Amino acid sequence: MDTTKVALVGLGTVGTGVAHLLLDEADRLARHAGRRLSLAWVVVQDRDKPRDIHLPRSLLTDDLSQVTDDPEITAVVQLVGGLEPARTIMIRLLESGKDVVTANKALLAEHGPELFDHARQLGRSISFDAAVGGGIPIVTNISQCLSANQIESLHGILNGTCNFVISRMDGAGASYRDALAEAQRRGYAEADPTMDVDGSDAAQKLAILAHLAFGARVHWQDIPREGIDQLQTADLQFARELGYRIKLLAVAQLVAEELELHVAPQLVRHDSPLAEVRDAYNAVRVVGDAVGRVWFHGLGAGRMPTASAVVADLVDTVVGRAAITFRTLELWSQRPARVMPRDNAHVSSRYYLRFDVVDHPGVLAEITGILGRHKISIASVIQHETGESAEEIVSLVVMTHTTTDGAIRQAVGEINVLEAVQAPTRVLRVLD
Amino acid sequence: MDTTKVALVGLGTVGTGVAHLLLDEADRLARHAGRRLSLAWVVVQDRDKPRDIHLPRSLLTDDLSQVTDDPEITAVVQLVGGLEPARTIMIRLLESGKDVVTANKALLAEHGPELFDHARQLGRSISFDAAVGGGIPIVTNISQCLSANQIESLHGILNGTCNFVISRMDGAGASYRDALAEAQRRGYAEADPTMDVDGSDAAQKLAILAHLAFGARVHWQDIPREGIDQLQTADLQFARELGYRIKLLAVAQLVAEELELHVAPQLVRHDSPLAEVRDAYNAVRVVGDAVGRVWFHGLGAGRMPTASAVVADLVDTVVGRAAITFRTLELWSQRPARVMPRDNAHVSSRYYLRFDVVDHPGVLAEITGILGRHKISIASVIQHETGESAEEIVSLVVMTHTTTDGAIRQAVGEINVLEAVQAPTRVLRVLD
Repeated sequence: MDTTKVALVGLGTVGTGVAHLLLDEADRLARHAGRRLSLAWVVVQDRDKPRDIHLPRSLLTDDLSQVTDDPEITAVVQLVGGLEPARTIMIRLLESGKDVVTANKALLAEHGPELFDHARQLGRSISFDAAVGGGIPIVTNISQCLSANQIESLHGILNGTCNFVISRMDGAGASYRDALAEAQRRGYAEADPTMDVDGSDAAQKLAILAHLAFGARVHWQDIPREGIDQLQTADLQFARELGYRIKLLAVAQLVAEELELHVAPQLVRHDSPLAEVRDAYNAVRVVGDAVGRVWFHGLGAGRMPTASAVVADLVDTVVGRAAITFRTLELWSQRPARVMPRDNAHVSSRYYLRFDVVDHPGVLAEITGILGRHKISIASVIQHETGESAEEIVSLVVMTHTTTDGAIRQAVGEINVLEAVQAPTRVLRVLD
Repeated sequence: MDTTKVALVGLGTVGTGVAHLLLDEADRLARHAGRRLSLAWVVVQDRDKPRDIHLPRSLLTDDLSQVTDDPEITAVVQLVGGLEPARTIMIRLLESGKDVVTANKALLAEHGPELFDHARQLGRSISFDAAVGGGIPIVTNISQCLSANQIESLHGILNGTCNFVISRMDGAGASYRDALAEAQRRGYAEADPTMDVDGSDAAQKLAILAHLAFGARVHWQDIPREGIDQLQTADLQFARELGYRIKLLAVAQLVAEELELHVAPQLVRHDSPLAEVRDAYNAVRVVGDAVGRVWFHGLGAGRMPTASAVVADLVDTVVGRAAITFRTLELWSQRPARVMPRDNAHVSSRYYLRFDVVDHPGVLAEITGILGRHKISIASVIQHETGESAEEIVSLVVMTHTTTDGAIRQAVGEINVLEAVQAPTRVLRVLD
């Protein structure tokens, strides 16, 4: 059986999982790859740092040129996070003739066009299934398994931290702060979880999927996004009462040949497969014109699930499938974008609106009057019974029929300045 | 852009979908394949049969040698069902140098070893993602995307007809006969649905997946199987009361390095992703030692979902990925089987037992006494209140803690001959 020399750059959480599979499950990988993968080097910053994996010390180096100078190493797993030195390392690896596997979504969302062009010019490949959805092979499924389809929409739960926090708020009735603190204790959330909870992480992943599925060239910062940091337990409870759950969804959908993109908490029907996605799990619903609806659901982060995706990409690379896929897809090439982003004001949806109002006569009439003038029709209303004491602040929840984002924004703008309205109206979309 | 000539043999439901994609979505396929796919011939038995697709008459032929004699045709989609002439057609195609894509699970379950060996000797490939799970790319996911894993278990809802029938019995309270008649009216079930409802179809698909995931060499007829034809609405209702749903599951799981295989209706927790699989949808839960639990869910049959899988395989074939995968996996090769089937008597599970008994004093004590002697411990019991009139027949439902199939069979054998017991005990496993 042939042997292929591979290397690993970065030995953090995921890198440790990858090293474990390469060293301890070598026979299994050989069976699945039809060749042995021999780990030649693990490049780290500090060889002496204590680690929770036992590695022969001779494998560790802090010198990337041990890898770049060895022409027998043809495939490298690059797991250094962030933008720099990750970008420079990628370029050095590609220029020294290596095919690269990475899980660094931030790097691809930021520098994808440059890196992919560079790889193409050099005849190399970049594989990145682990960059989106952790253990869920969503990149391969979109770019290979669903190749017969025009993909019409993607709805993804792509951030495990947010899903965990929402699950805790929903199931255990925890506050946002307590749920986030628990996510940090369990190691799901970073010490600084800003990029997770404000929707940036999901937007980076969505930008990558939107490019794969629609050929869209959009920078993640241009995707309208809202995180879970404003989410209140009350909204989760009202959603439940209406037969829904709230999930942070990353959405890309074709509407009249334009692409609507956004990240936001959204209501999903309680009996839909996305509603059943719990804790740190991720899921993606893809609608293709041939296949119909198809769902992928699994662990979106963590050492071994992400290592599973990285090593599958490495196997694809050493057997030669990755090179074919990379060449065929022409990702982030100079080809013009196939679809253009859509102005979200024209996007249609049903909406959940929560108004916090002083409970005095006529408030409901004022609010529904404004909605009516914007041609927003109402599907259902919840206002729970209150005491007789007047001037109490109550929540009034309205589910609308289908309307446009533009109409909702205008109506809510007018409603928010009413005297009876005590807080900005909470607006969430509803996934049908 | 290069062009690859392809051909299609068989123009039934799925073949019509494949022809539609090849002819009407040629630009899309060219974009995803990096080359144009040119449909050269459609081989049919009767050129004059009316069809629900408009095809240039010049494409139709009833002569397979138009395909086998044309060396420019390198990839052929073979959609003739059944065993013969499908097997002979496959062999003629392979021997004339064609790579083949097929959706014929019965053919692979029966003649897989012979056909795969033959293809290997000839340096050709066979792709068959459409043979299992329709539009769900489960074959590619197991054999490629999860290649870093030792798969530990597979639980599949693999027969859309059965899932539809169960959904109707469960949701609408329809009888088995009425639900099956509706499935036939809607075109989900065959005129003779025997192979669907008795679990044979699911067993054929399970045999294929078990070979892919575990290297098991098992003939589908050796897989213990039970269909839905004995399922009663009462069991669906009791399951619901206990917080479960009933699904026809095809199961392959490693237990102490042996492989347990069976097809049977089984209880799944109401809030698990498998419980949410409705109507004609299919789903597969895979547990891998690295990835953890991952679910795939989509339409398991139908013209366009199945055509989606066939055409993805065809794209993989013409770009060269299929050849690599086929060579690497060595499916049904002469290599010894990696795991051996397990004697189901040693398989552990929780069980649902329904006893139909005459309601007289001491019956519960007799039954629980027998269970206790076989060391089967009871998790919960349901017996609904009955009238005062003695000697009524009532259902007594017992959920057990984990025990073995062998212990259950012995205990139930003793219970079934009790005087108070009026019908064979219903035994269903419970998926944890």
